[in-house]
Amino acid sequence: MHDSFNVPGFLGNGVAAGIKVGGRKDLSLIFSEVPARAVGVFTTNRFKAAPVVLDMQKIQKGIAQAIIINSGNANAATGKDGDEDAASMSAAAAEVLGIDDELVLVASTGIIGEKLPIEKITRSIETLVGGLSADGMPSVAEGIITTDRFIKIECRKSSIAGKEITICGIAKGAGMIEPKMATMLSFIMTDAAVDQACLDTVFKECVDRSFNAITVDGCMSTNDTVILLANGVAGNNPIDEASGGLIEFREALLSVMDSLAQSIVRDGEGSTKLIKIMIEGAKLEADAKEIAYAIANSNLVKAAFFGEDPNWGRIISAAGATRVQFSTDSLELYIEDIPLFINGAGVSGKRAAEIMKKDTIRVLVRLGMGKEAFSLYTSDLSHEYIKINSYYHS
Amino acid sequence: MHDSFNVPGFLGNGVAAGIKVGGRKDLSLIFSEVPARAVGVFTTNRFKAAPVVLDMQKIQKGIAQAIIINSGNANAATGKDGDEDAASMSAAAAEVLGIDDELVLVASTGIIGEKLPIEKITRSIETLVGGLSADGMPSVAEGIITTDRFIKIECRKSSIAGKEITICGIAKGAGMIEPKMATMLSFIMTDAAVDQACLDTVFKECVDRSFNAITVDGCMSTNDTVILLANGVAGNNPIDEASGGLIEFREALLSVMDSLAQSIVRDGEGSTKLIKIMIEGAKLEADAKEIAYAIANSNLVKAAFFGEDPNWGRIISAAGATRVQFSTDSLELYIEDIPLFINGAGVSGKRAAEIMKKDTIRVLVRLGMGKEAFSLYTSDLSHEYIKINSYYHS
Repeated sequence: MHDSFNVPGFLGNGVAAGIKVGGRKDLSLIFSEVPARAVGVFTTNRFKAAPVVLDMQKIQKGIAQAIIINSGNANAATGKDGDEDAASMSAAAAEVLGIDDELVLVASTGIIGEKLPIEKITRSIETLVGGLSADGMPSVAEGIITTDRFIKIECRKSSIAGKEITICGIAKGAGMIEPKMATMLSFIMTDAAVDQACLDTVFKECVDRSFNAITVDGCMSTNDTVILLANGVAGNNPIDEASGGLIEFREALLSVMDSLAQSIVRDGEGSTKLIKIMIEGAKLEADAKEIAYAIANSNLVKAAFFGEDPNWGRIISAAGATRVQFSTDSLELYIEDIPLFINGAGVSGKRAAEIMKKDTIRVLVRLGMGKEAFSLYTSDLSHEYIKINSYYHS
Repeated sequence: MHDSFNVPGFLGNGVAAGIKVGGRKDLSLIFSEVPARAVGVFTTNRFKAAPVVLDMQKIQKGIAQAIIINSGNANAATGKDGDEDAASMSAAAAEVLGIDDELVLVASTGIIGEKLPIEKITRSIETLVGGLSADGMPSVAEGIITTDRFIKIECRKSSIAGKEITICGIAKGAGMIEPKMATMLSFIMTDAAVDQACLDTVFKECVDRSFNAITVDGCMSTNDTVILLANGVAGNNPIDEASGGLIEFREALLSVMDSLAQSIVRDGEGSTKLIKIMIEGAKLEADAKEIAYAIANSNLVKAAFFGEDPNWGRIISAAGATRVQFSTDSLELYIEDIPLFINGAGVSGKRAAEIMKKDTIRVLVRLGMGKEAFSLYTSDLSHEYIKINSYYHS
């Protein structure tokens, strides 16, 4: 039934271990039949959750075979207990899977600062492993969400020198109803054989252009994790700088990751719109990035989008408040194809009010200072965001 | 009646010129009977409103005698027209007052990007000047607000070497119901005689510790302006580095400015609480400042305060997401006197939920890295903020 979500050599399963209330799935396992090349990027927050600290260490070897993930508890800010629980979770999965503990990665998402109910996890591992199947990825995707409104799974097939390869990714986002919950997690699986250094480079480039180019509320989690496993089961000649398949592989990988990233924003807390902020004509890419984030994280801009108000003064004001050097006379602002600010003054954009009613909107700022560009996706700021994040829960 | 708001040698008035709807006051004038020493700080936004550009030029002379201020229109992003209108507003006031145009400063607040209705202003200047009085400061304060819930006026008297001096300040904040409106404006008047270089130094120090230590939504206006006029009418020996009155003067000035700054936060858009974020034990003051702003501008933290949820995970996570180097094991977090995070793990703070119900709350973060500190005031993030800023208005 879910044939399109299968990746050769990968099995998955998700079960309800009782961490979340209401019998929802909250424990997932991804298993590769053979050890896979592994690369990952993790939160740069100084307060890293215990599983993040553990994975950052293990992934240095560049090889992994399984990822065990729980939702409902972030195992973050949990001190020494947390470190032990993350290690126990890995060891228990390794034992039942019959593989080396070093090959198991761990991820958690949910409440910060509460002890992980490790017994609930360890006693569910037999069932979790017993149910592993090639069709299990949607079930894995279901077990990693907290209160996302929909599961996020994306697959692409590509032909590399005559061999078909598959890339599938799952993600959970910031669709959280209970406070103290947040985390972006994503796991990407491919059967392609890829040279390790090459995989690392391409993966990081794709992360920068997908998960690192979105913002819901500018708040960085303690648990953010993106891991890619490549098990080589497709039997292609390993993709590297010299081989012809690198461009195709990169394109397919970026497509999966970009779609997942957009899904996270669209499912962002209280989000009613997906807004693409495009900055062009910057002197440096860093300048374009600084302005893009300043606009995307401005509460005034975000609230205006929620209100469907083409309030361009807030957009240029957010750009002007950054440290980036530019001439206010050369800056141009468009919403979709409608110019709103040109030659240092506003332009009457009557159609802009109509455009603001769309559920996906592009904002273009041309700085006129150079040739560099940066784009990102953001959401609007709605009553629902406040409701979700102020609800009392302690 | 308003005797306590009088400053010797200063007159004020506010009238309704028809810029705002509903016959509300929207045009104010501050006049010193003798030319006064003038110092000012202005928005660092690249998109500076026309009156800001004009004042930055004029105030370099260090002397001014009048400030004319309108609300209801920011005269920002208005191109060449805007520059001409700001100049006309100054010239018209100078003519009726019978003083040199160079001695008149101008400020505007309100909608960005709409042409200033300059005729409404010029035709009201006779009435505005005619009504000037020593008791007029509350009327000035009324004319500069947009939709602040209350007017902001603070006065202090101090004795400098046997002479009584008075310092009064007025301010408008970000209490805005209509979108496209924002600006922090403040005008401080004193009859003290102060050496120019000394006045400039003390003023900027006080701005840094008051108006530059508050945030409502992290959005910087195109019009932010703080101007201090000191007319010397008190007849004291000019205060300078050598004289004994500097400490007293600085203390009184900071007290006026700090109270006004707190009023702005308390009257911030949708604000229900005043939150003081105190960072101690930083290696550098810049580190303390970066962390204080990161916490104060975190939507997750602000929404938690609105929900009265002692959600400490969000506070430490916001600190951890900055570029500041610190050890997560040495960081300590308190809400009022209740420890919530110590020695790398959370502490059960049962009383914290009770404390969160207060309308003024102190958050203390000790970094354990050095001796530097920084404090600022912020507000919570409420449904009202979204309502105010998403309401359609074009």
